Amino acid sequence: MKGYHIAVVGATGATGTELLRVLERRSFPVASLRPIASARSAGKLVRFRAIDKSSAFRMEAHVPLVIPEINADDLRQHRGVIANPNCTTTVMLMALYPLHRVFTVRRVFATSFQAVSGSGARGVEELQRQIAALATASPSHGRQDRQVTPELYPHPIAFNLLPHVDSFLESGYTKEESKMEEEARKIMHLPEFQASVTCVRVPIYRAHSVAVSAEFEQPVSVEQAREVLAKAPGLELVDEPLSNRYPMPLTVSGKDNCEVGRVRRDCALANGLSFWVSGDQLLKGAALNAVQIAELL
Amino acid sequence: MKGYHIAVVGATGATGTELLRVLERRSFPVASLRPIASARSAGKLVRFRAIDKSSAFRMEAHVPLVIPEINADDLRQHRGVIANPNCTTTVMLMALYPLHRVFTVRRVFATSFQAVSGSGARGVEELQRQIAALATASPSHGRQDRQVTPELYPHPIAFNLLPHVDSFLESGYTKEESKMEEEARKIMHLPEFQASVTCVRVPIYRAHSVAVSAEFEQPVSVEQAREVLAKAPGLELVDEPLSNRYPMPLTVSGKDNCEVGRVRRDCALANGLSFWVSGDQLLKGAALNAVQIAELL
Repeated sequence: MKGYHIAVVGATGATGTELLRVLERRSFPVASLRPIASARSAGKLVRFRAIDKSSAFRMEAHVPLVIPEINADDLRQHRGVIANPNCTTTVMLMALYPLHRVFTVRRVFATSFQAVSGSGARGVEELQRQIAALATASPSHGRQDRQVTPELYPHPIAFNLLPHVDSFLESGYTKEESKMEEEARKIMHLPEFQASVTCVRVPIYRAHSVAVSAEFEQPVSVEQAREVLAKAPGLELVDEPLSNRYPMPLTVSGKDNCEVGRVRRDCALANGLSFWVSGDQLLKGAALNAVQIAELL
Repeated sequence: MKGYHIAVVGATGATGTELLRVLERRSFPVASLRPIASARSAGKLVRFRAIDKSSAFRMEAHVPLVIPEINADDLRQHRGVIANPNCTTTVMLMALYPLHRVFTVRRVFATSFQAVSGSGARGVEELQRQIAALATASPSHGRQDRQVTPELYPHPIAFNLLPHVDSFLESGYTKEESKMEEEARKIMHLPEFQASVTCVRVPIYRAHSVAVSAEFEQPVSVEQAREVLAKAPGLELVDEPLSNRYPMPLTVSGKDNCEVGRVRRDCALANGLSFWVSGDQLLKGAALNAVQIAELL
């Protein structure tokens, strides 16, 4: 019988659920499927064949860190373990890398807007519970949030923003912010690449968005950039601001492709572009990317 | 009888309501108060003595654009009209200007997270209505937002993000983004200052936040920056990330002072700092700033 024996750890979590859906939707040849629920790893960790979605092995030299549209060739060097990048890194690179290939990126200034499902099913439940408790409260002073008790996050997330994703490092950056730079360097094979990142958890259920200012070595025009982005695999150019068309969590949720828009000349960089990219972090940011890697193997 | 005759246009709007509260709280000498409700300007326009909170006159050369903590001296040149800056500009400058005075700012890369009350009472009502309709819907695909019909904003704002504040310009920037640069130049007397800004409307009721990467002419250390920020008027340094203390809409709502935190060396700029600033845009961003100007006059 043709097909693969697959074990999904954390199959009942946010990413695990999506992974099972993606396998079915793409008719992946599955001989046997063994969902392994794990309280600790639920929604956090999915091992797919040997594909590790956790952050444990991402930065190890012999472990390829792969986004198939970008560095599929790196798969050849694997020694059993392949890592799936951080979901916010993936969403940013789906738009940045096609531009890099043509104009050569030097550095970016990026701010992320991250949905609660990035913390797994518990993040979704936490926002739902707080919203239900506060839905009918009067927001006159914006203070009604104080009535809810956070469990997963250190502060209420409903009607609030947390400039805090993952734990803090000595440098003042969070691990999440630091990963965006380190993983982007590895995936793009650009050890000198610099990324100044602020990651923020926002009270939305699904899809991550990133506001990016990028500096390139080559001169770049908005028209050229739009052409490049329109042709990039896994990406849709949604950029008709005068018709109120731009990427949003609302439109990108449940979609395989990421969306990029708000493309404009960066007014504080010589060869610079600003843009806004959104992607479903459970699909392209996690489950879909893992299945795409498995399809290539 | 001592005191001033005051007319508040749009007194029933979001800013108007706060303005009346601030006048009372600060015991401003009021001889007569005439609230003028206007359907068109509700929550948008407040004329206070001669202080104009709308954007109509801000950039005219003979109209001082004033944040009392920064450029109170500019009030001397007024010819009857004084303008109150855009609320997002004010929140950013409350942290940026004290740093500029010591280290001389060149440019910033900034991303704003703006509450719906920045659109006035109608913004608050719109989010409330959508949240009430969606509070019990299942967020499994993040798609439940489709069930609500937007009225004020072009798309649903509940559980969504709009990279769209104010109207779009030919350049691809919005007016709001462009104002942040132009108004900052005027207020800081820095015609060469560059600000690359992305403004985003987020589903929270109150307080604006801005993630800022700033480049300075002088070398700057995190320790020096924290010292400067801790002493700055109208600002509180909330920066103990390991104890989960950082500025948030939740803590800054209803507060006169802005909060700054997440201060760290910017890893993509030579003399650079990254920080996160939050402020109640109806108080320091609007009503409080206007009353402070009136107190100086």
